[in-house]
Amino acid sequence: MNAQTEMKPYVIGLDLGGTNSVFGIVDSRGEIKATTAIKTQGFDTVDEYVEASVNALQVIIEQVGGIDNIKAMGIGAPNGNFYNGTIEFAPNLSWGHNGVVPLAKLFSDRLGIPVALTNDANAAAIGEMTYGVARGMKNFIVITLGTGVGSGIVINGQLVYGCDGFAGELGHVIMRRANGRSCGCGRFGCLEAYCSATGVARSAREFIDTTETPSLLRDMKPEDITSLDVSIAANKGDKLALDVYEFTGRMLGEACADFAAFSSPEAFIFFGGLTKAGNLIMDPIKKAYDEKVLNIFKGKAKFLISGLDGSSAAVLGASAIGWEI
Amino acid sequence: MNAQTEMKPYVIGLDLGGTNSVFGIVDSRGEIKATTAIKTQGFDTVDEYVEASVNALQVIIEQVGGIDNIKAMGIGAPNGNFYNGTIEFAPNLSWGHNGVVPLAKLFSDRLGIPVALTNDANAAAIGEMTYGVARGMKNFIVITLGTGVGSGIVINGQLVYGCDGFAGELGHVIMRRANGRSCGCGRFGCLEAYCSATGVARSAREFIDTTETPSLLRDMKPEDITSLDVSIAANKGDKLALDVYEFTGRMLGEACADFAAFSSPEAFIFFGGLTKAGNLIMDPIKKAYDEKVLNIFKGKAKFLISGLDGSSAAVLGASAIGWEI
Repeated sequence: MNAQTEMKPYVIGLDLGGTNSVFGIVDSRGEIKATTAIKTQGFDTVDEYVEASVNALQVIIEQVGGIDNIKAMGIGAPNGNFYNGTIEFAPNLSWGHNGVVPLAKLFSDRLGIPVALTNDANAAAIGEMTYGVARGMKNFIVITLGTGVGSGIVINGQLVYGCDGFAGELGHVIMRRANGRSCGCGRFGCLEAYCSATGVARSAREFIDTTETPSLLRDMKPEDITSLDVSIAANKGDKLALDVYEFTGRMLGEACADFAAFSSPEAFIFFGGLTKAGNLIMDPIKKAYDEKVLNIFKGKAKFLISGLDGSSAAVLGASAIGWEI
Repeated sequence: MNAQTEMKPYVIGLDLGGTNSVFGIVDSRGEIKATTAIKTQGFDTVDEYVEASVNALQVIIEQVGGIDNIKAMGIGAPNGNFYNGTIEFAPNLSWGHNGVVPLAKLFSDRLGIPVALTNDANAAAIGEMTYGVARGMKNFIVITLGTGVGSGIVINGQLVYGCDGFAGELGHVIMRRANGRSCGCGRFGCLEAYCSATGVARSAREFIDTTETPSLLRDMKPEDITSLDVSIAANKGDKLALDVYEFTGRMLGEACADFAAFSSPEAFIFFGGLTKAGNLIMDPIKKAYDEKVLNIFKGKAKFLISGLDGSSAAVLGASAIGWEI
């Protein structure tokens, strides 16, 4: 790091979601100094998207004293490839679904600063290491429990990208090799098919069909049940909803026991909507892990919930990649 | 590396097995210049074991011009902890089963050179990277198929030790969560219970019990069948023995598909007795992997058999740790 870059106190983070693109300018302690957003969709080409982004960014860049105060930009994006700075065949992006988009280079050319890009779960892991509960840790795994199940793996203080930039797809390890649920990836039995928000709703519908357990959720149309409904019911003490959390947590705990055999992390850090259930999900995770993990790993790993502020966590995670460039 | 260490052309490798301890003095190209061995067991204390080792070593050290020609020593040992240079509660060692033995320090104090220690599968991985088929690779996984199933994982050019030195126990990921076979680790359904040499023999006995498939192995007492017998029968075209290899290989391929989701390695490298079956085991591994792996990883990983000479591979692997110190 030379004197010039040391003097630049901020990075830009872009949380590129399917609906909104949220930008933040962040200092080294993880404080968001300025923020703006545009809609992600509605652009025919990536150039139009970048143009709109840069126009929105100019305003907040001026608020922090201009581009000379900004070291770099980090982007967390679906199907993001860190090695190439590209978004590759992202099914949910109007301007990125049918090819390889060199998004990092396009932003870098327009802003004149280095830009790095990775997927959102990897961004969350770097965010935890930079500003969150993983500060000082060299070996940990972040598991994101949202619409899908994602992961960011840190080993020896480095994010694991693998040979192609796509490592860390722990939502797609197989947890049920026989009669597994269909998964969005086209296969069967993936962790994501059970432990994502949609997986939780599927479990509730399955438990309604296959058990006699009384439940408030039986008053709803099965197809209308969401993970939020399960959460609300569980907080009212609903037995079936509690069983769903128990089932979901146990499967996550068993999966973590396998992950320990791989990289023996110091901590598993959970991130995303399902973590709002707190102990309802964390207790069965820990219990199943302790029961199932290989003896030599027992009692070593911590189980933590993300320390990043929920509403800004994704922007913070993305910005943190900027410090790593 | 200073001038002095650059001038030292050799490292010592110790393959510390349950029966024999084999020492080799190795140059930087992986050529073994001198070798010796002692029995591992029969010593009451580790000090007696180290004394006998050093006495044997003195002879071959003199053969290469004395200790000044030797940079370091690497040890591959069961239950080896790289971080501490210790063997911890190794059940099969008369002088190491009931505690933590600081073996690296004991050798270092006696020989006056740096000594590092790790488990045998990790040593194999470093050996492949230093002298074998993984030269130039930054991301790969070595899977050892012997009495047990072990693994050494390299990510970003570094061996994965995890928070405690015990990462990379891929023989103990769970492949059968319901009705899994008992494993030596005290749990059920581990990869090792199916895909080790003993697992292969168990599969043969199971297939004899549960199928009508004709087989030469039916002429043996079930309890006498070993993986060698299965291999001999398979090479004669025995249908049941071939089915056992197909079953074993498929499970390994499915396990590798999960490992790809973790670290997306450039190659899976197989090491140990079962690899002698060649395509009988490698073909079903590759086929199951291609069928089961997540789409983004398809066609990326190579499947290789160890490039280290079988009889000396373990010594070479151990010695390779010496270059890393």
